Amino acid sequence: MDRIFIYDTTLRDGSQAEGVSFSLQDKLAITVKLDELGIDFIEGGFPIANPKDESYFKEVKSLSLKHSKIASFGSTRKVGVRTEEDKNVNALLFAETPVVTIVGKSWDFQVTDVLKTTLDENVKMVTDTILFLKSRNREVFFDAEHFFDGFKSNRGYALKVINEACSAGADVIVLCDTNGGSLPDEIATIVEEVRKNNKCILGIHAHNDGDLAIANTIMAVNKGVRHVQGTINGIGERCGNADLCSVIPNLVLKMGYHCLHNDGLRKLTEISRYVYETANLLFRTNQPFVGSSAFAHKGGLHINAIQKNKVTYEHINPESVGNKRKILISELSGSATILSKTEKFNLTHDTALLRSILEEVQNLENEGYQLESAEASFELLVRKKTGKYKPFFELEGFRVIVEKRENGLPITEATVKINVNNTQELTASEGSGPVNALDTALRKALERFYPVLKDMKLLDYKVRVINPRSATAAKVRVIIESKDKENVWSTVGVSGNLIEASWQALVDSIEYKLIKEYEAKQL
Amino acid sequence: MDRIFIYDTTLRDGSQAEGVSFSLQDKLAITVKLDELGIDFIEGGFPIANPKDESYFKEVKSLSLKHSKIASFGSTRKVGVRTEEDKNVNALLFAETPVVTIVGKSWDFQVTDVLKTTLDENVKMVTDTILFLKSRNREVFFDAEHFFDGFKSNRGYALKVINEACSAGADVIVLCDTNGGSLPDEIATIVEEVRKNNKCILGIHAHNDGDLAIANTIMAVNKGVRHVQGTINGIGERCGNADLCSVIPNLVLKMGYHCLHNDGLRKLTEISRYVYETANLLFRTNQPFVGSSAFAHKGGLHINAIQKNKVTYEHINPESVGNKRKILISELSGSATILSKTEKFNLTHDTALLRSILEEVQNLENEGYQLESAEASFELLVRKKTGKYKPFFELEGFRVIVEKRENGLPITEATVKINVNNTQELTASEGSGPVNALDTALRKALERFYPVLKDMKLLDYKVRVINPRSATAAKVRVIIESKDKENVWSTVGVSGNLIEASWQALVDSIEYKLIKEYEAKQL
Repeated sequence: MDRIFIYDTTLRDGSQAEGVSFSLQDKLAITVKLDELGIDFIEGGFPIANPKDESYFKEVKSLSLKHSKIASFGSTRKVGVRTEEDKNVNALLFAETPVVTIVGKSWDFQVTDVLKTTLDENVKMVTDTILFLKSRNREVFFDAEHFFDGFKSNRGYALKVINEACSAGADVIVLCDTNGGSLPDEIATIVEEVRKNNKCILGIHAHNDGDLAIANTIMAVNKGVRHVQGTINGIGERCGNADLCSVIPNLVLKMGYHCLHNDGLRKLTEISRYVYETANLLFRTNQPFVGSSAFAHKGGLHINAIQKNKVTYEHINPESVGNKRKILISELSGSATILSKTEKFNLTHDTALLRSILEEVQNLENEGYQLESAEASFELLVRKKTGKYKPFFELEGFRVIVEKRENGLPITEATVKINVNNTQELTASEGSGPVNALDTALRKALERFYPVLKDMKLLDYKVRVINPRSATAAKVRVIIESKDKENVWSTVGVSGNLIEASWQALVDSIEYKLIKEYEAKQL
Repeated sequence: MDRIFIYDTTLRDGSQAEGVSFSLQDKLAITVKLDELGIDFIEGGFPIANPKDESYFKEVKSLSLKHSKIASFGSTRKVGVRTEEDKNVNALLFAETPVVTIVGKSWDFQVTDVLKTTLDENVKMVTDTILFLKSRNREVFFDAEHFFDGFKSNRGYALKVINEACSAGADVIVLCDTNGGSLPDEIATIVEEVRKNNKCILGIHAHNDGDLAIANTIMAVNKGVRHVQGTINGIGERCGNADLCSVIPNLVLKMGYHCLHNDGLRKLTEISRYVYETANLLFRTNQPFVGSSAFAHKGGLHINAIQKNKVTYEHINPESVGNKRKILISELSGSATILSKTEKFNLTHDTALLRSILEEVQNLENEGYQLESAEASFELLVRKKTGKYKPFFELEGFRVIVEKRENGLPITEATVKINVNNTQELTASEGSGPVNALDTALRKALERFYPVLKDMKLLDYKVRVINPRSATAAKVRVIIESKDKENVWSTVGVSGNLIEASWQALVDSIEYKLIKEYEAKQL
């Protein structure tokens, strides 16, 4: 089984993405995670670009990595400068990494129009730098920038650059689709041509501007490339780089290559989310392989079939990449879905009940509820339909007041009156906004009766206008995500009144927590 | 130049995505947009699945579409049922669409293990249904579900199903990679084989589970497929479908095919964002072609090069898909943008003023305002900075009360006290929710002084939580869209308090209207 080497550039190319900025601590923490995943090479940054990257190369030496080798990244020497005097090249040495990756031009037009030098001087810049770094005992990878565009424009020159780089001693020649605009069959044809002329190990570095970075990477491997560059979650400049979270499972599970040390594949979902969190980016729920919806089934027909055999609608086993299957409730579901979501209620034989639950789901979705993202509200619905529900409290009333004087900030106050087993409780609370005030007052009232509510916290609050064209008289849907020490759950409310919609979702969330604590223990 | 037909299934397969639920009005609005884009076929939904889709097929007939034909979608007849008595097939007829798309099995294992019938009965289910629908004068497209997995498992049977479908009169045979796990070179080889055996027009329907849907679609077109299915933004079950926002520009700009009526390509970015907004999904900023970062340049070197020649780091011209280049905010490029947005104020020579506006924009965006979607709020900002603003009224105070008793609906009341040229006005109003009540009371107070406000209407009201992890204490951004007889304009407000954020956007909206009516006439 052939070995493919994986080179991660999340910390360098990834940090050029709009909105991404890693701190030094972030970079070190991601390095440890990438090593656990079993990545071969980790590109840490530009040692010359900024003090943060300089400190990174100092501190990374004290991490005891098991598998990964660290690479520093920079350009070849400048036009007309002696290599040993070039600031950038010296910074690369100073980083003291076992691997150094240098980028150089291979597109004639970039040499003459951007670098403004001769084609020969550019070749010498590449070979001088490689010879120099090899003489200092570095493993040297050469990134041939714009290689595919260069090959299309001037085949002879593009090949000359990489062949001379190979002769100068580069350990890997990385063919870069820098603008990300090449098509998979072009990549295949060009890599095939290169292989006839170049005896070095070849690598691929694909950008995603045409939405083809994964395919371009795979096609290059098909034609003999053995070194693959990319980033976790595909983050990178413009549309990003080849997403290693998709490239690696395709190579391993579909194409039978060996990548990653240490059976790291099962950690893929975890590292994907870790990098999103660290970069403060939202997860892409429908991301292939590692997204939370990647194995989510919604259509009723699909769910029926999945229960018969997993391969009917799953291309791989979700656990092989550390992900899991998810069954969703919606108006598109059939009884089979309802059944699979209500296993613990044992409804198998009660067709009439199943149908009545399904009808209720459809009615609610017609009104604008969305139960697939509110599993706790769905469970309450089933409990109500099956007689397994009793309310934990009764609302006697609430009032929310928002008051503003001239240009001051508004003051928000809520009062809530509830009744638990004939004991009344009236509480009041201020809040940063009307929903926050109502939430705080309700918990204050209930905690006296149900102290477990102290464990519970609201995590997220989403509002969507359902029929936007009616503007401020529109219906809104509120979804609330809550958590305690063990679980996370979501609830939904819909109304023409934002406060009422929020109230419904709040009450469902609290009731779900109380059922979990009190009812479930009696079941 | 070859013509490729585009078949959009955003309204059917797209609505099977987790978290997506289109209302009837959403579906009709998206239909109009797809027609403007110049899509050939629009799959509207399952006429049998739910009342919403039934209403869609009724109402879509009254839209006067210029280019697009509507398709209804459903299964072939059931096992052992006469076609003319099959409920699903009859629902397809009842939808009265010019095109009907039916899905049937072509993977032997799915027939025997999921449908639990014989291979021959499955072929008859397909051909019976096609013959029946053709006899009712429908254009019939046959979706061969799991075709590629079927071909790999039992080549002879998979080919038999589609060849019989072709003989029965299907107008297009759509090869589906239902599980989305096939590789581009497999797709190419299989389509090539199919073409030797089948004389119908071939289509491709690729899912994105391997992150290869775009590539698989393109490879199929390379091998002779002429009908391409996908969804806007690639939304769909699990990891979604082939993203038409990437497929179409690759076909047109890279491969030279002709798609879309009416030069629709330039509307691609607009429709991508429209569908995200309607589905209440966040934009994917790094989405190829249409994302807001797709042509964003961050690295200093890149920007320098881009200024020398666009092709250095851009694979296509952003305007060809209705997108635009974005240069890292620097003092210079920033001022140029402000300048181009404030032409009517003649600020060219006032560098200090330009810089101060730019700083204010940056501060506001840092706090969560989004001025690019609120040009009216931006104009007010410029007026305030340039001394071209005087307030039309002063707020003395407002109060909003939401009150609920037991399980009744809440009652919402707002009072507003304003002052116009030392005349006080105090009004009160009820509303369906707090923002509606506040809006109504404010207009009531102002209309006495400014009767032109009667022309003005709120069109849309959007709420987005900016820092979701703080839940109900989170900051929210409210964007309000307003219109009068001639114009549509948007305004923005941000606050920890939803009512305050809505108030800011409401006031900006009203002031913008008044400036337009009174100030502009004096300018």
